[in-house]
Amino acid sequence: MSFSHQTLGQCVHFGAGNLASDVSAEAQRLAARRVMLIASGSAASAADRLAEVLRVVHRYDGARQHVPAEDAEAAGRVAVQVDADLLVCVGGGSAIGLGKAIALDSKLPLIAAPTTYAGSEATNVWGITERGRKTTGVDDAVLPGSVVYDVDLVATLPTSLSISSGLNALAHCVDSLWAPRADPLNAAWAEEAVRALALGLVQITETPEASVDGAQQLQYGAYLAATAFASAGSGLHHKICHVLGGSFGLPHAQTHAVVLPYVLAFNLDAAPAAGDRIARALGAGDALDALEHLRTRIGAPRALEDLGLREQDLQLAAAQVLDVVPASNPRGMDQDDAVRLLHAAWTGEDPAELRPHP
Amino acid sequence: MSFSHQTLGQCVHFGAGNLASDVSAEAQRLAARRVMLIASGSAASAADRLAEVLRVVHRYDGARQHVPAEDAEAAGRVAVQVDADLLVCVGGGSAIGLGKAIALDSKLPLIAAPTTYAGSEATNVWGITERGRKTTGVDDAVLPGSVVYDVDLVATLPTSLSISSGLNALAHCVDSLWAPRADPLNAAWAEEAVRALALGLVQITETPEASVDGAQQLQYGAYLAATAFASAGSGLHHKICHVLGGSFGLPHAQTHAVVLPYVLAFNLDAAPAAGDRIARALGAGDALDALEHLRTRIGAPRALEDLGLREQDLQLAAAQVLDVVPASNPRGMDQDDAVRLLHAAWTGEDPAELRPHP
Repeated sequence: MSFSHQTLGQCVHFGAGNLASDVSAEAQRLAARRVMLIASGSAASAADRLAEVLRVVHRYDGARQHVPAEDAEAAGRVAVQVDADLLVCVGGGSAIGLGKAIALDSKLPLIAAPTTYAGSEATNVWGITERGRKTTGVDDAVLPGSVVYDVDLVATLPTSLSISSGLNALAHCVDSLWAPRADPLNAAWAEEAVRALALGLVQITETPEASVDGAQQLQYGAYLAATAFASAGSGLHHKICHVLGGSFGLPHAQTHAVVLPYVLAFNLDAAPAAGDRIARALGAGDALDALEHLRTRIGAPRALEDLGLREQDLQLAAAQVLDVVPASNPRGMDQDDAVRLLHAAWTGEDPAELRPHP
Repeated sequence: MSFSHQTLGQCVHFGAGNLASDVSAEAQRLAARRVMLIASGSAASAADRLAEVLRVVHRYDGARQHVPAEDAEAAGRVAVQVDADLLVCVGGGSAIGLGKAIALDSKLPLIAAPTTYAGSEATNVWGITERGRKTTGVDDAVLPGSVVYDVDLVATLPTSLSISSGLNALAHCVDSLWAPRADPLNAAWAEEAVRALALGLVQITETPEASVDGAQQLQYGAYLAATAFASAGSGLHHKICHVLGGSFGLPHAQTHAVVLPYVLAFNLDAAPAAGDRIARALGAGDALDALEHLRTRIGAPRALEDLGLREQDLQLAAAQVLDVVPASNPRGMDQDDAVRLLHAAWTGEDPAELRPHP
């Protein structure tokens, strides 16, 4: 056992209806008197509630996806002009990403209240997009010092969106187990996250009366999943999905939901410790069987064909995947393996066929 | 699910023979040019190795237990006089505790290389003893920014000491599950720690050829145990052991080793989620059976009578325990309960007798 691991210091609050009280308590703790409030379009009413309890000197609504550089520059100028002493972001990756971009230069403290399961609030990773190219980096200045998870902010998401977003978080966990900086701590957070995400996914799908409990499990799991994934880095699964999204325009969350069991099947027998963690978290003997059982219960999308990928693109996609297979992957991959994996995910056939001895 | 949790930012390094390389890399990262090196008596040779690779302007050997206030003041003055820009502590709670006491006033950064399983290096808790009274507090200034776990520093500990120290860390985990600030994150770290500690304890006891692997598991588990315990606070178990140590002079680690199963038996059926975590971590169906099985395998001490407690002290001890039972404890305790628990631990009888329906 030889590894180095950076833990990040944050104050995280979980609750129901706690948005205004926890955010204002954190702002008071920081003695903030000049708050810049940043909201994504869908979080306007949540931002209204915050505006009532914070000393807001500027409100930025409608933060856009992928943090366009011109938005980051303009918002950064505003933060200086209004002499803000705190950034409060409510929304998904757009609002939190814009807040991070401002904090990168200004070093202003940041409080985040996420409205999705994407997890940006738990990481020190920033991203800014200029002329279609996203530049990303790591800087502790962009880490939100406190995060307020209010289940009321996610409980109204459509179930289908929650399922694909929850499966996306589940993919963060599974992939972190064999990613370049995989270590026991990341694996422990990932295991706990898989347990919470699986419970939450089943609750929101099968038991409407427990859907708020389920959404809380998803928030909790998504937080841990982001922690593990940001620390461990991108593994084979994320490399494949990046190719499918970047070169072939497939939708993000659904692609993750389809591809995950095929990557698990490919790697599982070469990564027994990872398999043990996933199986334990899913309360089953075999990780792949348990993941398939979960996906069936929650009606996860099953085939890349249904997401718009054409069969004639599989060879090209496989070649692109081969270029980016992480050295850390527990099982080596050649062109045939890559085609076979993508083809299986394209048809939606039983992923167990990809195991070395199915 | 409603809770707030402060995570602490640290860089932790685990390895074998990594003391000098990881500490000097961290010192370079901080651009340290004037290191004050603090060592406990037993860590002199480790300190010698560090002195070779660091720019040491002062070396403080023989740090004493419980951080006497006069030592803290004298060492703090030295740190100012020599214009230190970094504190490096190698040793157990004495050396790390003294470093923390200096950092409390000076705000100097701190690197810790622990030689025990006590866990002070993973917390922002400090303690200083004056005229026999220990004052403790919490301050992020005393949190070591980096911790270097080198298994060579613990692999030579006598097995009996490792067992009681490992069981002490195990008690941190179990008690954190029902402590005042218990929350799902603490519980997740505690579960992972129980798994590692149990594995490590069995390895160092039963398989001499795996004793270094076992010591690494104990270091890893002790780190997580300290994280969970410092965050969650003292539960019933630590309150009982504090009474037995403080008023009746019983030895620290052995007392923890004896008392733990009786507190677990008392609380278990009122804390099913805690029981599930412990059982899962120990790979068994029932947490108490699994703990007893582990204690038998590793030859843990079994009765308070053997540690010097007198039968006629049980009533007084029980009364003192009753005064400090945490409100968070999952099961209420009256004088009869307290006497019964202590009497059972005194004789070493089957702890299962304490369950409501044994």
